[in-house]
Amino acid sequence: MADDKKKFLEVFQQLKDELVQAEKDDAQVAIAVDWIDKMVEYNVPHGKLNRGLAVVDGMRALNPAGVSDDQMHRAMVVGWCIEWLQAAFLVWDDIMDESVTRRGQPCWFRNPKVEMVAINDGLVLECQIYSMLKKHCKAHAGYAELLEMFHEITYKTASGQLLDLITAPIGEVDLSKYTEEAYMRIVTYKTAYYTFYLPAAAAMHLSGVTDPAAFAKANEICEKLGQFFQIQDDYLDCYGDPAVIGKIGTDIQDNKCGWLVVQALKRCSAEQRKIIEENYGKKDAECEKKIKELYVALDMEAVYLKYEEESYAELKGIMESQTVLPSELFGAMLAKIYKRQK
Amino acid sequence: MADDKKKFLEVFQQLKDELVQAEKDDAQVAIAVDWIDKMVEYNVPHGKLNRGLAVVDGMRALNPAGVSDDQMHRAMVVGWCIEWLQAAFLVWDDIMDESVTRRGQPCWFRNPKVEMVAINDGLVLECQIYSMLKKHCKAHAGYAELLEMFHEITYKTASGQLLDLITAPIGEVDLSKYTEEAYMRIVTYKTAYYTFYLPAAAAMHLSGVTDPAAFAKANEICEKLGQFFQIQDDYLDCYGDPAVIGKIGTDIQDNKCGWLVVQALKRCSAEQRKIIEENYGKKDAECEKKIKELYVALDMEAVYLKYEEESYAELKGIMESQTVLPSELFGAMLAKIYKRQK
Ligand SMILES: [Mg+2]
Ligand SMILES: [Mg+2]
Ligand SMILES: [Mg+2]
Ligand SMILES: [Mg+2]
Ligand SMILES: [Mg+2]
Ligand SMILES: [Mg+2]
Repeated sequence: MADDKKKFLEVFQQLKDELVQAEKDDAQVAIAVDWIDKMVEYNVPHGKLNRGLAVVDGMRALNPAGVSDDQMHRAMVVGWCIEWLQAAFLVWDDIMDESVTRRGQPCWFRNPKVEMVAINDGLVLECQIYSMLKKHCKAHAGYAELLEMFHEITYKTASGQLLDLITAPIGEVDLSKYTEEAYMRIVTYKTAYYTFYLPAAAAMHLSGVTDPAAFAKANEICEKLGQFFQIQDDYLDCYGDPAVIGKIGTDIQDNKCGWLVVQALKRCSAEQRKIIEENYGKKDAECEKKIKELYVALDMEAVYLKYEEESYAELKGIMESQTVLPSELFGAMLAKIYKRQK
Repeated sequence: MADDKKKFLEVFQQLKDELVQAEKDDAQVAIAVDWIDKMVEYNVPHGKLNRGLAVVDGMRALNPAGVSDDQMHRAMVVGWCIEWLQAAFLVWDDIMDESVTRRGQPCWFRNPKVEMVAINDGLVLECQIYSMLKKHCKAHAGYAELLEMFHEITYKTASGQLLDLITAPIGEVDLSKYTEEAYMRIVTYKTAYYTFYLPAAAAMHLSGVTDPAAFAKANEICEKLGQFFQIQDDYLDCYGDPAVIGKIGTDIQDNKCGWLVVQALKRCSAEQRKIIEENYGKKDAECEKKIKELYVALDMEAVYLKYEEESYAELKGIMESQTVLPSELFGAMLAKIYKRQK
């Protein structure tokens, strides 16, 4: 696995070099070549790389007889395309959320020479995906399907982002919008598809899977994995150990439409709802404390732990009862996230 | 032609309805369905529609024996995809340029409920292109080529935007960057490809043209057409009649890397260069006047008129000496822009 990561990072270097060389070959002006080089380096390779490496894991699960060097290289390229897509989304998301830091450095648009140029940089990152896919995957039988899948998942993610942005606009609390329907939709669309379905389905296309029933099953499982993952994320934001997760949760003060508040709204009395209305989304430690006290009163931790157990059992059940795909394709993903502390 | 425009606008209604219906079928939450409907209506159909209609004209030029209803409908869909791409670029560009109005209404991001959500809306518009192409063109032999062409032209346009943004950042004058090399690159990449090459090449793909030499020739001609068009635009910004072009030119005060200042910098003495350094890009009518006086001293109007004649003759020559494509494919485009007053 450590070896995978090392090889994966070598492929990043190759891909970035090819993109920069293509700009030079196309007579791009030097200041712009330089910009693209720095912008890609700043935004693409510094995450956990889970999504990209999941394509590699998926290839092994789908090809028990072995994966050739050629296949592995192609899988890594597609893995990086997912990391590139994530980078584009993060560049844009940080502007829209007025975020300050990302992956231990200032958000890209916070750099004084960048600012709103970051909007166009997000697009450049997205465009580079199709340039890399054309260069490295055009000869593969699954090329057309890969293109359409990247289009569709990008659209789904953008559609989840839209709902997220208009459900909880910055500086505006409207709890009537914090429904379970909106919450599940946001989570599934803005996170689950590109985080879980895209790597799994990419490995399937690269392994010659064409059965629509297999893709439908992968979709069903990945939606649930993504929901599980995000609900954990929302839980950890409030109940996780800041020393372990590496940051102090801010969802309550940031007015996030998170799982805890959605569940609390479902369970609270009229008086308790008033407490939420008066204290949620306020940049004030006292208000935050009142919300956390309410979560204790409603025993939200137990509500979460019950959800986690049930959801895990449900997922295991679906994975094990299906026969269209090797269960290892999802087993590794689930093992990584179940009972995680960060 | 008026009839084309009427039919073209009917196809817009159909495409928008299909996109909205697809969101409903996919169980999108009502506030987001409504947002997408309004956002598309606000940003897509209110331009001159020249790019979209150029696909229709191109189909007629390439199919002298006649264009079937089916072919015409597909051409209109692809024409709208180009208008959708333009809309995405304009939504983003207006944020980056801090613009105020667009097509007679406030820029999309200037609407109080929109603001930075417009970044994601630009992406939604871009994603819708691939959804429309899949629905209406997947069965066509040129589908894969169409997809790759939209990818490539989007990338080229983003790359032109990048160079434009870093050559002339808001509030910073650095005339050493205003070279003819940078100018021609910006113009060709940020305007020529999607405005001229994309409609022509789309009509070629939809008409079954596959000869690479034909696409290379179309590319050569369209680059020059686009340069000609943008240089006119820069000229009209300073010398056009505001009553005719419908706005007062602001390129000098806005510090634009325009054709006139690039040519003036090539021709000026050291003293005259100082005048440019001290007065270009200042939000001050007196400074603007000094630049205009310098343009008179350098006889920039004559420089432009000479360029226009030479460039027109060169374009005519290339169009008429090539035999891989019907000359009407470009003749209509050139006739529309030569000697235009707005
Ligand atoms: Mg964010
Ligand atoms: Mg966000
Ligand atoms: Mg979180
Ligand atoms: Mg602009
Ligand atoms: Mg601009
Ligand atoms: Mg202009």
